[in-house]
Amino acid sequence: MNPDITRERENATFNVEKLTHILDGGIEKTKRRREIESLVISDPDFQSEDLNFLSRSERYDAAVKKSAQMILKLREYGISDPEEIYCYKSCVHRGRAEPLDLHLAMFLPTLLNQASPEQMETFFIPAWNLDIIGTYAQTEMGHGTHLRGLETTATYDPATQEFVLNSPTITSIKWWPGGLGKTSNHAIVLAQLHTQGKCHGLHAFIVPLRSMNTHIPLPGVVVGDIGPKFGFDEVDNGYLKLENVRIPREHMLMKYAKVEADGTYVKPPSAKLTYGTMVFIRSMIVGEAGHALAKSCTIAIRYSSVRHQSEIRPGEPEPQIMDYQTQQYKLFPLLATAYAYKFVGQYMNQVYHRITGDISQGDFSELPELHALSAGLKAFTTWTASEGIEVCRMACGGHGYSRCSALPDIYVNFVATCTYEGENTVMMLQTARFLIKSYQQASAGHQLSGIVSYLNESERRLQPQSVSSRPTVVNVNDLASLVEAYKLRAAKLVEVAAKSIQQELQKRVSQEDAWNNSAIDLVRASNAHCHYVVVKLFAAKLGEIGDTGVHSVLSTLALLYALQGIQQNSGDFLQTGLLSVPQLSQVSQRLKELLAQLRPNAVALVDAFDYCDEMLNSVLGRYDGNVYEHMFEWARRSPLNKTEVHESYHKYLKPLQAKL
Amino acid sequence: MNPDITRERENATFNVEKLTHILDGGIEKTKRRREIESLVISDPDFQSEDLNFLSRSERYDAAVKKSAQMILKLREYGISDPEEIYCYKSCVHRGRAEPLDLHLAMFLPTLLNQASPEQMETFFIPAWNLDIIGTYAQTEMGHGTHLRGLETTATYDPATQEFVLNSPTITSIKWWPGGLGKTSNHAIVLAQLHTQGKCHGLHAFIVPLRSMNTHIPLPGVVVGDIGPKFGFDEVDNGYLKLENVRIPREHMLMKYAKVEADGTYVKPPSAKLTYGTMVFIRSMIVGEAGHALAKSCTIAIRYSSVRHQSEIRPGEPEPQIMDYQTQQYKLFPLLATAYAYKFVGQYMNQVYHRITGDISQGDFSELPELHALSAGLKAFTTWTASEGIEVCRMACGGHGYSRCSALPDIYVNFVATCTYEGENTVMMLQTARFLIKSYQQASAGHQLSGIVSYLNESERRLQPQSVSSRPTVVNVNDLASLVEAYKLRAAKLVEVAAKSIQQELQKRVSQEDAWNNSAIDLVRASNAHCHYVVVKLFAAKLGEIGDTGVHSVLSTLALLYALQGIQQNSGDFLQTGLLSVPQLSQVSQRLKELLAQLRPNAVALVDAFDYCDEMLNSVLGRYDGNVYEHMFEWARRSPLNKTEVHESYHKYLKPLQAKL
Repeated sequence: MNPDITRERENATFNVEKLTHILDGGIEKTKRRREIESLVISDPDFQSEDLNFLSRSERYDAAVKKSAQMILKLREYGISDPEEIYCYKSCVHRGRAEPLDLHLAMFLPTLLNQASPEQMETFFIPAWNLDIIGTYAQTEMGHGTHLRGLETTATYDPATQEFVLNSPTITSIKWWPGGLGKTSNHAIVLAQLHTQGKCHGLHAFIVPLRSMNTHIPLPGVVVGDIGPKFGFDEVDNGYLKLENVRIPREHMLMKYAKVEADGTYVKPPSAKLTYGTMVFIRSMIVGEAGHALAKSCTIAIRYSSVRHQSEIRPGEPEPQIMDYQTQQYKLFPLLATAYAYKFVGQYMNQVYHRITGDISQGDFSELPELHALSAGLKAFTTWTASEGIEVCRMACGGHGYSRCSALPDIYVNFVATCTYEGENTVMMLQTARFLIKSYQQASAGHQLSGIVSYLNESERRLQPQSVSSRPTVVNVNDLASLVEAYKLRAAKLVEVAAKSIQQELQKRVSQEDAWNNSAIDLVRASNAHCHYVVVKLFAAKLGEIGDTGVHSVLSTLALLYALQGIQQNSGDFLQTGLLSVPQLSQVSQRLKELLAQLRPNAVALVDAFDYCDEMLNSVLGRYDGNVYEHMFEWARRSPLNKTEVHESYHKYLKPLQAKL
Repeated sequence: MNPDITRERENATFNVEKLTHILDGGIEKTKRRREIESLVISDPDFQSEDLNFLSRSERYDAAVKKSAQMILKLREYGISDPEEIYCYKSCVHRGRAEPLDLHLAMFLPTLLNQASPEQMETFFIPAWNLDIIGTYAQTEMGHGTHLRGLETTATYDPATQEFVLNSPTITSIKWWPGGLGKTSNHAIVLAQLHTQGKCHGLHAFIVPLRSMNTHIPLPGVVVGDIGPKFGFDEVDNGYLKLENVRIPREHMLMKYAKVEADGTYVKPPSAKLTYGTMVFIRSMIVGEAGHALAKSCTIAIRYSSVRHQSEIRPGEPEPQIMDYQTQQYKLFPLLATAYAYKFVGQYMNQVYHRITGDISQGDFSELPELHALSAGLKAFTTWTASEGIEVCRMACGGHGYSRCSALPDIYVNFVATCTYEGENTVMMLQTARFLIKSYQQASAGHQLSGIVSYLNESERRLQPQSVSSRPTVVNVNDLASLVEAYKLRAAKLVEVAAKSIQQELQKRVSQEDAWNNSAIDLVRASNAHCHYVVVKLFAAKLGEIGDTGVHSVLSTLALLYALQGIQQNSGDFLQTGLLSVPQLSQVSQRLKELLAQLRPNAVALVDAFDYCDEMLNSVLGRYDGNVYEHMFEWARRSPLNKTEVHESYHKYLKPLQAKL
């Protein structure tokens, strides 16, 4: 054990294990998680060479191998609880996406939700046993977020009682679905349904892609891998071009909408039913943002405690780089953010499960708010977490750039969340739509409830209008007061956006152009709203924590989170008159104090995330702090060192020397 | 040609070719650059498969092959001007780093600068002819920015007239030098010189690493590749552990410092002589920041003009995504930034060459300012450019995540500049040291000249102190007025940092701790200083431009750049009383107008950067806008599609199906 990191742990002022239980959701959950982790870590079938040393094809190969093993072992161990499956899977693939992800997370659930009883009989058991390996093919080369724009067609032919599927244009080629390229032999294809000369919009169809025997693509099916990406090297994201592919009528998912034998279309009872999954996945992503940032902070903070560099005082030994104020200023607010997002993730998960109960009883009332919140928070958290991962990486100096730090991997795999499951700007604008609608309702005299109740007229009248008209009341040392300030900032920025729309409308532009011409303000308003929600939920979480030591350190983190947000957005707080110039200097001063205050607990706070070395897979983030020996060992194992002299020397350099 | 992009070009209001000449530095330079580019592009020896499809070892191999060809052809064509060599090399390697970079850019120049005439005779011609392939080994595993911390030792043994080189600890292993792992047979090693029982600090030694015949490492030399990184896949960044490696006395570079045969140490005449190279490289990096951002903007803006998505007005066709205000707000300020950095790069280059003339005549007076400026600007531009590249990538939606966009590559290769040649935070603090020193001189009554003259007392007294005490005079429509505002902001923030140091000193902490406890403020001050310099230089550049059309569009860009910087740092401008709250609303409004104003010129403005398709190597950034066809074609060529059925199916999936 590196003595620096041992000393850090000795200096901590709280019980790390207790905080871990809070993060896991209880002592029992921590125990079970660790059981599952050691099941995987001790399993020789899940060992492999460092993925960084493999080619893309080898990485895909290794992932398929592990996924196949995983399916067998989950059944062998009888692990069937979805959360436990997720945990086991994360351990096996070290948090990476894998070729069977869409089979497990989209194909099977979609069958469960949208297949008729007869279809369940036909498809579910074969899919459960991986005779059918499926994916979910929605996105097209030319169409992503805007579903109505999808071009793939499924035209019903009553003569043969078949649907004929086509990709009529190059832009209609299905593009991106995970597992589509090489792994799947079936896909649920989203296509525009045409029957009796009429288009009825998007519906889902089960399309066989490859022979069940030989795995060779079926006639009319042009399928393959879309090529290398920024990350996701283990996944065969694919393309699919359909050329007059015929499937039986019974391959349209018919639990709700139906096409009868003669081609008569029967509408589904409600459109909101497919809404829930999207909300669930976005909620999950918020938790993943906390997760990715927590991992990155673990690596950067542990490394900062063992790395010595430069000098603060001449003549003294090089200090731990964590002693530099600039390093603390980079890392500790991110640490606070990681905690904040983990707690927000927990909250979203709870709300989702509560609301799902209501939905199953036909009560959709809370869904619009959760939908709006999950969209905005997904964007808000993934953007800041992505940037934060890179800050952590660069805070490790040159070594952060090495793949052995694991930080490049965390970044490239996480940053995709800014784009998938709804592009972030589009997500922010969805939340804005909800906010503006709420604002307009409140302006019209309706009394709002829930998270947007701050938009109620009565509350808004209490808001300060400008620096001069009203003295500010924010106490920069009191978290409750800061939550209030964030709330008023959000209220103000929603108002600014709403007024921008009004002004545009006065110029006689259309409603839609007014919206587009105010989009910058709308995103800003959503952002402020999400920021408020995060600060509020972090503060609320503190109320649940009984242990004094843990409560104290988390309170410091929450205050740091809130104050740093104010500093970074100081223009908003000054502009809305919520803070005065002298208060802002106070914020700066207080921030510096909080950094110094957190310094002794920094390593313990990342230890509490409880990532074992096998899961982190980072030389810089090792628990024992013995970074350099292992970096050297890692480098020596790397592929270019398999031979002392690389063949290019004999091929190019030696002959060149002769010619010059 | 895609009709959307053709229409964009038809709508441009200025002459693209004229702007290209300005960017190149004259019509003749544009012509010559294009000549060199077509020499390379038409050369069959420089064609290769897409690097994204190759393994790391294959990429290294391909790069060595190209570099060897390049050396032959440069001699064949008689290209010897350093700028032209740089241009040719960039074309050959498409802007990527390559295994011979350090041989050409560090090993040969260091010989030229620091070798004695006898050493030139011994080493230069063999190095010129690539019998000796060299690198420059400075950074160690445990030591980067802080040179005094380097641990490698060179101990003189008068008995044999040799130096004995050692890596005494694991942290002293040389780590990171490009070309060290596999390519080089020699290295210039920076080591602590010990002679006659005394350490004389860092000196440079020529150390043979590998046999000139077999390329096998020599006894005592443990050398290899440090393994895969975020980017730089073509470069064999290496490690080097020296175990009692003996080299003749004549292998110490002795143009300045010397060790005589008996071990007597002779000091160099001036320490400032090695200063220049560092300044030059950092100045180059500023230009590279403009370059990387210009490429990224080219890709994202061209793609945004051919990509259609969602709807602004219901019932109308999907609009070009460049019509969304949010998309313009992401991309156009970055486009302005790319222009700004290109102009700053030109300026730095001119100043460097002017000052180099002075230095060769023994006049070092301007060097400290340029040194400080190059450090801060390197950090300022590389941070914002790195973030900007990712914004461009994500502005391309999902397809930006594909390697075919080229944006992942641009990012991973460019972002390294935030860390190398001086870690950015350390660079910012270097600039801060110069600013604080200047501030103190001014406070002591000295009259400052040059870029920091705004810190003179007389000027500072004219500054506004708070919102209330003085009406603001900034005209948000006038660039000169905005330059002034940036200047005053910088002055104010330097003052804030200086006062923080004073306050710390009053707490009886040491000078060093006071510095560290004010580091956040110091970085902020440097940042404001650099921002001011960029805005000022952009404004100054406009004065050189005669063509009305070009002048007009660049003026709009400069205004956009200045106003967006104010919006993003609105807290600073409000806090220092430079802008009022209503003015800030004006800034927001004006920004929206400028986005709309730039919209018709966006494609033409990236066309003016004049990156040919071969150099961009981006499917999304193609000049003809025919994105989708080529994306499909690119994907079909990718390695996982070499067979219809991947071997993992037979190895794992088929057997699994049998077991379930």
